[in-house]
Amino acid sequence: MSNSLGNLFTVTSFGESHGKLIGMIIDGCPAGLSISEADIQQELDRRKPGSNIASTPRNEEDKIEILSGVLNRKTTGAPICLAILNKDACSGDYDETRSILRPGHADFTSYIKYGGFGDYRGGGRFSGRITAGFVAAGAVARKLLKETGIEIIAHTIEIGGISAEVQDIDTIRRNVNTNPLRCADMEATSKMIDAIEQVKAQGDSLGGIIEGIATGVPAGLGEPVFDNLDGELAKALFAIPAVKGVEFGAGFVAACLTGSQNNDSFDIEDGKIITTSNNAGGILGGISNGMPLVIRVAIKPAPSISKPQATVDVKQMTKTQLKIKGRHDACIVPRAVVVVEAMMAITLCDLALRAGLLPGIIK
Amino acid sequence: MSNSLGNLFTVTSFGESHGKLIGMIIDGCPAGLSISEADIQQELDRRKPGSNIASTPRNEEDKIEILSGVLNRKTTGAPICLAILNKDACSGDYDETRSILRPGHADFTSYIKYGGFGDYRGGGRFSGRITAGFVAAGAVARKLLKETGIEIIAHTIEIGGISAEVQDIDTIRRNVNTNPLRCADMEATSKMIDAIEQVKAQGDSLGGIIEGIATGVPAGLGEPVFDNLDGELAKALFAIPAVKGVEFGAGFVAACLTGSQNNDSFDIEDGKIITTSNNAGGILGGISNGMPLVIRVAIKPAPSISKPQATVDVKQMTKTQLKIKGRHDACIVPRAVVVVEAMMAITLCDLALRAGLLPGIIK
Amino acid sequence: MSNSLGNLFTVTSFGESHGKLIGMIIDGCPAGLSISEADIQQELDRRKPGSNIASTPRNEEDKIEILSGVLNRKTTGAPICLAILNKDACSGDYDETRSILRPGHADFTSYIKYGGFGDYRGGGRFSGRITAGFVAAGAVARKLLKETGIEIIAHTIEIGGISAEVQDIDTIRRNVNTNPLRCADMEATSKMIDAIEQVKAQGDSLGGIIEGIATGVPAGLGEPVFDNLDGELAKALFAIPAVKGVEFGAGFVAACLTGSQNNDSFDIEDGKIITTSNNAGGILGGISNGMPLVIRVAIKPAPSISKPQATVDVKQMTKTQLKIKGRHDACIVPRAVVVVEAMMAITLCDLALRAGLLPGIIK
Amino acid sequence: MSNSLGNLFTVTSFGESHGKLIGMIIDGCPAGLSISEADIQQELDRRKPGSNIASTPRNEEDKIEILSGVLNRKTTGAPICLAILNKDACSGDYDETRSILRPGHADFTSYIKYGGFGDYRGGGRFSGRITAGFVAAGAVARKLLKETGIEIIAHTIEIGGISAEVQDIDTIRRNVNTNPLRCADMEATSKMIDAIEQVKAQGDSLGGIIEGIATGVPAGLGEPVFDNLDGELAKALFAIPAVKGVEFGAGFVAACLTGSQNNDSFDIEDGKIITTSNNAGGILGGISNGMPLVIRVAIKPAPSISKPQATVDVKQMTKTQLKIKGRHDACIVPRAVVVVEAMMAITLCDLALRAGLLPGIIK
Repeated sequence: MSNSLGNLFTVTSFGESHGKLIGMIIDGCPAGLSISEADIQQELDRRKPGSNIASTPRNEEDKIEILSGVLNRKTTGAPICLAILNKDACSGDYDETRSILRPGHADFTSYIKYGGFGDYRGGGRFSGRITAGFVAAGAVARKLLKETGIEIIAHTIEIGGISAEVQDIDTIRRNVNTNPLRCADMEATSKMIDAIEQVKAQGDSLGGIIEGIATGVPAGLGEPVFDNLDGELAKALFAIPAVKGVEFGAGFVAACLTGSQNNDSFDIEDGKIITTSNNAGGILGGISNGMPLVIRVAIKPAPSISKPQATVDVKQMTKTQLKIKGRHDACIVPRAVVVVEAMMAITLCDLALRAGLLPGIIK
Repeated sequence: MSNSLGNLFTVTSFGESHGKLIGMIIDGCPAGLSISEADIQQELDRRKPGSNIASTPRNEEDKIEILSGVLNRKTTGAPICLAILNKDACSGDYDETRSILRPGHADFTSYIKYGGFGDYRGGGRFSGRITAGFVAAGAVARKLLKETGIEIIAHTIEIGGISAEVQDIDTIRRNVNTNPLRCADMEATSKMIDAIEQVKAQGDSLGGIIEGIATGVPAGLGEPVFDNLDGELAKALFAIPAVKGVEFGAGFVAACLTGSQNNDSFDIEDGKIITTSNNAGGILGGISNGMPLVIRVAIKPAPSISKPQATVDVKQMTKTQLKIKGRHDACIVPRAVVVVEAMMAITLCDLALRAGLLPGIIK
Repeated sequence: MSNSLGNLFTVTSFGESHGKLIGMIIDGCPAGLSISEADIQQELDRRKPGSNIASTPRNEEDKIEILSGVLNRKTTGAPICLAILNKDACSGDYDETRSILRPGHADFTSYIKYGGFGDYRGGGRFSGRITAGFVAAGAVARKLLKETGIEIIAHTIEIGGISAEVQDIDTIRRNVNTNPLRCADMEATSKMIDAIEQVKAQGDSLGGIIEGIATGVPAGLGEPVFDNLDGELAKALFAIPAVKGVEFGAGFVAACLTGSQNNDSFDIEDGKIITTSNNAGGILGGISNGMPLVIRVAIKPAPSISKPQATVDVKQMTKTQLKIKGRHDACIVPRAVVVVEAMMAITLCDLALRAGLLPGIIK
Repeated sequence: MSNSLGNLFTVTSFGESHGKLIGMIIDGCPAGLSISEADIQQELDRRKPGSNIASTPRNEEDKIEILSGVLNRKTTGAPICLAILNKDACSGDYDETRSILRPGHADFTSYIKYGGFGDYRGGGRFSGRITAGFVAAGAVARKLLKETGIEIIAHTIEIGGISAEVQDIDTIRRNVNTNPLRCADMEATSKMIDAIEQVKAQGDSLGGIIEGIATGVPAGLGEPVFDNLDGELAKALFAIPAVKGVEFGAGFVAACLTGSQNNDSFDIEDGKIITTSNNAGGILGGISNGMPLVIRVAIKPAPSISKPQATVDVKQMTKTQLKIKGRHDACIVPRAVVVVEAMMAITLCDLALRAGLLPGIIK
């Protein structure tokens, strides 16, 4: 069940980049939730390539279809099958490089694991395109989370080494959906755009860092010791192809603080226990503490670059050079922002159900 | 099943810091593996407090007992129950602070989640002490991994902001078990020791960064898309109480590289496909690529400090000050090194079994 | 994940009787298995209604589409999505009875569990029609099982209280696919047909008993103590809507034997350990013993009958009478034979993978 | 995780018949439930051998110890470890027959599955003795179920072919705990006792049928389509070593009824929807319908008999005769009654939690 995630709110991913479709099944969504194709399409459109300077002009419609589990625009309690038919696929682009391993891609590991039977067309199962399914399921999860008051927002905080200034949550909310890079710092954004244009011209790519924030998270989410809030979120986020690191709250910076600096003091505000700082990122002992959940995710630069690269032909077992043709994103970070939100939403739904914070039927 | 981890090699954690025992059940270990209490004790002794300057003089024996699943020093295929009886527990130290929330600890979240019924004695289930069970199970996992040629070593690479120089794997192997901080850089170690002594004198604590390396990992471990190698390892590592970040290979640094810098070129060496660099940390598409697996883990400073801290009494709902008494580690990083190794071993065993790289019976 | 079954070979069911489609995802099928839509269609056609006297003339094409996981007629190792579009659905037949509970159906329990949001059209998720998905997945499982030499055959042994004589396995193989009731005893079949015609004329229905046999099962399948061979098979079989009982080997008859009668003596035949009788039905201690696996399944009479029935209108909370219109099977047993085979095949694939008896890649 | 059962209320079995202990871990029990060793001991004492004519005089104390998860006699929300130390074990009785396969036992399948490394002493993991752990966990489950109003009672309805008359639930409740065979029909009991005495004298054994009833089950338990109420119960019951068949409601008898006979008409009683008969055994579409849950379980005669049996020496690969010495139950049915109750309780707890019918904290 390696293509399934979650215990009570379970998503199952299927489909390939250049196959018939990309899909996702949600099992365990409570009955009675209002959900329409338009709700999901809206999220998918945010992930769509071609919508900003950083990404490829590949024009996929990414049109969602709900194939099961919804009747009269309400969930029925049965598995919800979401499908996105692949339309603008040109597998011809990829065929000739089939046995030449693309550096940074899963061509080699897929070859070993599936004995050469894996779907090689455009990365097959290993394509970033499967995250369209994640986003579709995430759209349902986000609607469900609203029942608990949880809201999720992610934003770009670094691209190509250029960092955004720290912004307050309102500025982030205001800026992120209008900014082509989904960065709340408009000044940093200009610099990032310049950097992207530059690597693009060189046939290269840039990575970056995304921060995800969940507000309104009640204390008590997370099931210790192994299905804890940080562990479940990290696992979900590492399913996004380009993620190489995940940290919570102060994260790696916490490693250079002293205990007295890093500990968040407890206080009482409006009759509620809060912490006066949030180095913990909203998590203590693997359980949410009621403060905003703060995650940061390192996104590696997209491995598909048009610069020539040294590599190997796995069938011939010879060294060779590869120059990847076709359409590629110079920076996938802005699109990954939407995927980070989706994975957070899916995970929080599952843990909210496990903590008894969502009803079995939405009325 | 939140206290269980793994699919085919499953560990289940139980026990509390100041209860009768700490234990771990291993389900799915192949029959025929030689294992003795001495094998496990050796690993437990490495984790033991009081063995170096960084840790508390609390003298626990941490004596392992194998209660089931082993006959005539061979595993039988049945669940292996490992137990460590708690001997040197002084719960009196903790009782008076029961309703006063310790900053950085799980007192508050446990209180919310378990309605005040949680075992509060010394952190109960949330104590670092439960990682003794992880280490015991990890010892079995390490023995099993030897059947595949996988070896795991972890070492301290940063404490209190002081970084070790990068060392080769042989130096790491040579130095790590003789160095009190489990750091391969002897010079950095002296500075780290000074820093620890200093915060100790102030009743404070230090965090750090641990690097874990697995060599001999065959290509093909990891089950995409969700049970992939990075996701499963991250989930396992976040079960260690103080972990706040996990990264693979270049990790967060990859975020500031270009694609051409970050991509590892493929090459052929001794008839085997390798990469000429290892920014990927041994993982492509969530599957091991045959290169060393490289993980880095951020450890926050231990939250138990003797400096006075502002906090709240959760029963009285009043603000108060807390000065934690008792014996506490000024730096848990060197002990956590052993736990990181254990969690890596447990996860790799599970994935090796799932990939068919371990037999059902060891002969 | 209640709509998923299996651990390493996992099937996930989705779709509704009168929705867009019925589907099944198979996760964990080894790469390299030859599979085509024709292979699956063949099994689906065996389940199809209208093919024999016992069933309704409803003319569904039940045409299978493989939507993912297969490339160039070989499995890729990725999730296999199988879909059957619903064509001949006339939901109008059902609408008027929506709030009138059909006795013997899941209308009431679905209403309670899903708060009235459940898909009521033709039974929705609770329709026998979802077993078309089981059969599709079972077709893949059967092909995979051939790699191990396991063959599965089921046959009708009782309908409406009329029992077939015990037949040897060759007779069963020869007769079952030519006989309209899938019964190996031709004489009993005539009587069963008469009985079915009779209840059909009365607008009533008949149940029966199916026996499933798996030959070529190697010793060692089944994971004690809970995921044992009998437990996993029983769970899978109880997912078939009309199943009310499952027994293995001598089954309920074993309860009236003495130990000396019921114990199967061990013997040696062609250098292999066998038992001289098979009261155990091929299972000892939850593990296959190398003898044929023998299961019997009680199928209740189809609850959809045209005779008037006393019932309740759940919205009005009034007593009422119901006369179900539309097309209904007088005896679902012959069609259920194919579903029993499918569930056996799915379960045995999962346990064969767990026992290491199937490779990760089929070459 | 084959030694674990359940999703939210999970039990993990460990220990061997003649090893150090028999144990069970319960993960997922809500915090705040009152539980003491006395509560559990009471149930264990009901299962104890030597308490009635049917069983062996082996005098085990079966003394329960709660090793974790309970503080001040309340569950803490952490895993509850229950242990029963083995005291009266005489493994010497078994040693000489180690390689001689006992018919009807798991000696052969264990040998194949675990390559001869399995614990052979007294059946090891395959001994009925591991059900002592089931009963201990069941005692906790029964206490938890009381929060929902569910009560479970099982009773013997057939031994050696002698059937009890059908009794009403009050008679069953009154008689079952005072009757040595746990049979509610006192007259049938005398005949059963005679039959047992007779086979005992011949060194043989008898099987029987147990009926389990759960009253107060609210409508809505069971997660279709695979984790449904009948499937989950059947799987749990087949973990009891001697079970060869499981049926619900009319069970195998339903197979000879017509639809109009078998369908339970709906009616309204005290403003509540009921059925006027209960052929469904309280389950429709895999979900409880509010009527009593009725299960019947076929128990094979205990395979340990002192009559000589033809068998094989698996090491020598020679035919031989076996005469099992030692102390053995002539009829395990009365003891199995307690185990059936335990497995029902464990399964219903899990499904009640999954259906949201139990709170996360008991107050």
